[in-house]
Amino acid sequence: MEHAVPHDALIATAEAAADAAGACIRPLFRSRLAPEDKADASPVTIADRGAEAAMRAVIRARHPEHGILGEEGGAERPGARWRWVLDPIDGTRAFITGRPLFGTLIALLDGATPLLGVIDQPVTGERWIGYAGRPTRFRGGFGGVAGCRPCARLDLAELSATSPDMFDAAATPAWRRLAGAVRRRSWGGDCYAYGLLALGQIDIVAEADLKLWDWAALVPVVEGAGGRLTDWRGAPLREGGDGRALAVGDPALLAPAVARLAG
Amino acid sequence: MEHAVPHDALIATAEAAADAAGACIRPLFRSRLAPEDKADASPVTIADRGAEAAMRAVIRARHPEHGILGEEGGAERPGARWRWVLDPIDGTRAFITGRPLFGTLIALLDGATPLLGVIDQPVTGERWIGYAGRPTRFRGGFGGVAGCRPCARLDLAELSATSPDMFDAAATPAWRRLAGAVRRRSWGGDCYAYGLLALGQIDIVAEADLKLWDWAALVPVVEGAGGRLTDWRGAPLREGGDGRALAVGDPALLAPAVARLAG
Repeated sequence: MEHAVPHDALIATAEAAADAAGACIRPLFRSRLAPEDKADASPVTIADRGAEAAMRAVIRARHPEHGILGEEGGAERPGARWRWVLDPIDGTRAFITGRPLFGTLIALLDGATPLLGVIDQPVTGERWIGYAGRPTRFRGGFGGVAGCRPCARLDLAELSATSPDMFDAAATPAWRRLAGAVRRRSWGGDCYAYGLLALGQIDIVAEADLKLWDWAALVPVVEGAGGRLTDWRGAPLREGGDGRALAVGDPALLAPAVARLAG
Repeated sequence: MEHAVPHDALIATAEAAADAAGACIRPLFRSRLAPEDKADASPVTIADRGAEAAMRAVIRARHPEHGILGEEGGAERPGARWRWVLDPIDGTRAFITGRPLFGTLIALLDGATPLLGVIDQPVTGERWIGYAGRPTRFRGGFGGVAGCRPCARLDLAELSATSPDMFDAAATPAWRRLAGAVRRRSWGGDCYAYGLLALGQIDIVAEADLKLWDWAALVPVVEGAGGRLTDWRGAPLREGGDGRALAVGDPALLAPAVARLAG
């Protein structure tokens, strides 16, 4: 069903929210942190809270009838059909260590379905915009064009995950089966890795321990670039699921990747 | 002993070489690569070779009496007292996957000792310059100030490595002992992680399987920022050594980190 608000207006809201978040985050990136500082006073906590509050203010002013869910501030109007789902800093460790590969994630759900997704990197100035049924758009100064690349064979695929620490004892053997079947593995990146998949630079991202706000924005970005983003069984990701995500750039990789993860 | 060429002239050579390498590398970053392309024709191979040839030309023209060693082109005048050591793209996997965290490494050795080191990130425009006995300099548009941060306790330290794949069966238990003693671990970054240590963002980098051209430029950068860069026993890195490197931002971390690695 078509949204009552034109999609361009929704995208404009998401972009304004990303701009507001970036303005909070940039000044705190690479600020000095004493290792013994309390978590409450850390730059990443201050950036996280400030960016989420700024995004909520933008959304509330434009769409007072919409719900908002964020990691920091809980749920507003949780029963609303349209809900914005916010993750101000996806990739806390990247932020903390000064790597410019974290991202601000903004999704709009229609019921359970992600309708719109933005991945914004406020330091590099790169932004991915996905909207269900439309081609993903990308802009940034480092090059790259939106669109996944063809790669139908696991043994030629480039696989990525943020950290081996995200795989628990049950997930590790499945990850290892997949990692052993691909051409190369690389680490780090959080949401940025899904953005690189949507630019045809990576073929598979397989991760675990993701929350709704970690993956909701990625679905329209990846699928609008021609890829697929599912759980490890190849089924749509869902709120309250097991938090395991599998992105493939070439849909032909989905079945062999699922088979490897299943053992 | 003082070099016959003033240090400013040597730094100018290194910067000119980094500029020349960056001009070769930037246009090939995020160019489309079919997964089945031959390695010889891949953008990373073309960028690697072009950048090394460009750096050699700059150095040869300015210091015809110096030696040059690079991964691609072998050794020129290997018996020279002063030898430039080049790694055009440190972080091949980062380059291949579109992550702007690889780097061009340029070192000048006086005999076996690194005298000068440059880490250049040609996509983000960040550059670290180290020269033995002088404070490390950093410039770039993403913030950060050269200088390691104090962190004397392992249990408060931020630890980083590029990939678990770099640790063989002998190194893995040592890495795990260290990783289990720190506050947090993060992955990815190659030479960029040592740059972040020199900005006080990371406290320890422990890696294995490094060649001379992977570590020579890092020594003046890390030590000029107040840190230490040694092997896993705390001894100076040396050509033909075991390729295991340990960088600490706070010299007080060296002894406890070495003790953990030793078991």
